[in-house]
Amino acid sequence: MLAHRLTAMKKLEIVVLGEYVGDVRELLAEYVSGYTQIAPVSGRGHHGYHEGRLLFNDLSAQAMIVTVIRPEVLEPLLEGLLPLLERRSGVVWITDVSVSRAAYFDPSS
Amino acid sequence: MLAHRLTAMKKLEIVVLGEYVGDVRELLAEYVSGYTQIAPVSGRGHHGYHEGRLLFNDLSAQAMIVTVIRPEVLEPLLEGLLPLLERRSGVVWITDVSVSRAAYFDPSS
Amino acid sequence: MLAHRLTAMKKLEIVVLGEYVGDVRELLAEYVSGYTQIAPVSGRGHHGYHEGRLLFNDLSAQAMIVTVIRPEVLEPLLEGLLPLLERRSGVVWITDVSVSRAAYFDPSS
Repeated sequence: MLAHRLTAMKKLEIVVLGEYVGDVRELLAEYVSGYTQIAPVSGRGHHGYHEGRLLFNDLSAQAMIVTVIRPEVLEPLLEGLLPLLERRSGVVWITDVSVSRAAYFDPSS
Repeated sequence: MLAHRLTAMKKLEIVVLGEYVGDVRELLAEYVSGYTQIAPVSGRGHHGYHEGRLLFNDLSAQAMIVTVIRPEVLEPLLEGLLPLLERRSGVVWITDVSVSRAAYFDPSS
Repeated sequence: MLAHRLTAMKKLEIVVLGEYVGDVRELLAEYVSGYTQIAPVSGRGHHGYHEGRLLFNDLSAQAMIVTVIRPEVLEPLLEGLLPLLERRSGVVWITDVSVSRAAYFDPSS
């Protein structure tokens, strides 16, 4: 059985405008050892005021940052991430995933 | 606790040939406020007849459209989406996700 | 109800350095009928020794391969995939998903 080699984790998919990727990465660095960035992606959504222009529901260059964390890290990470995303018109989707080699994802490893 | 700030939603990942993205977007616009498009992606799968040539199991330029909806929207959206994907050789994957700011995803918002 | 048209499957997201995509594809071909490749993606993570140079925590061109399999295929596929990923510094995330047209994903179809 491989079941004992899989560990329950949380996957975060964060979608933000490309210019805010640095802010997200900086915050993630405290909690995760790695991430995968998919860019550029395009999207249609809410952006509110952006660079002094009203870009409501426009098509903008966004980046998606995907990372996997231990469940106990979810709450402290979100405490920092949610206010940042609210200011930056970003979103985060959280999914239950199983991974092999969970220790790989620890920031200390 | 942040738990009360997270809402259970459904994530849809739709993979279709690039030329059919417009059809999918048009249908989504009735149900979602936004989506993220990852393109181009490549894939190997079933395509059947395409542009008059038999492209079975070929490598073609595909797009992936990712969106998040409230659970109660899943069924009406799929009623329209599944027949479209069947005609267009597309697929949809549905995953349970949690999001912050669920109202962000409502088409009326 | 559409529920009976949806089937519980497993989604695999495999992240590896671009040069090892061929190895992963070759292994997947025994178990799946198709996959979607998102490339290039970038990432920060563990790479250990790579091409004779120590690239610890560097930013490298990676590929993400996404595929969907029947739950009963998970274990035999992982038996082959996990050792390959360990040698190649890759990771796999496994998620429960629902799909329409499950037969579409069978290698024999």
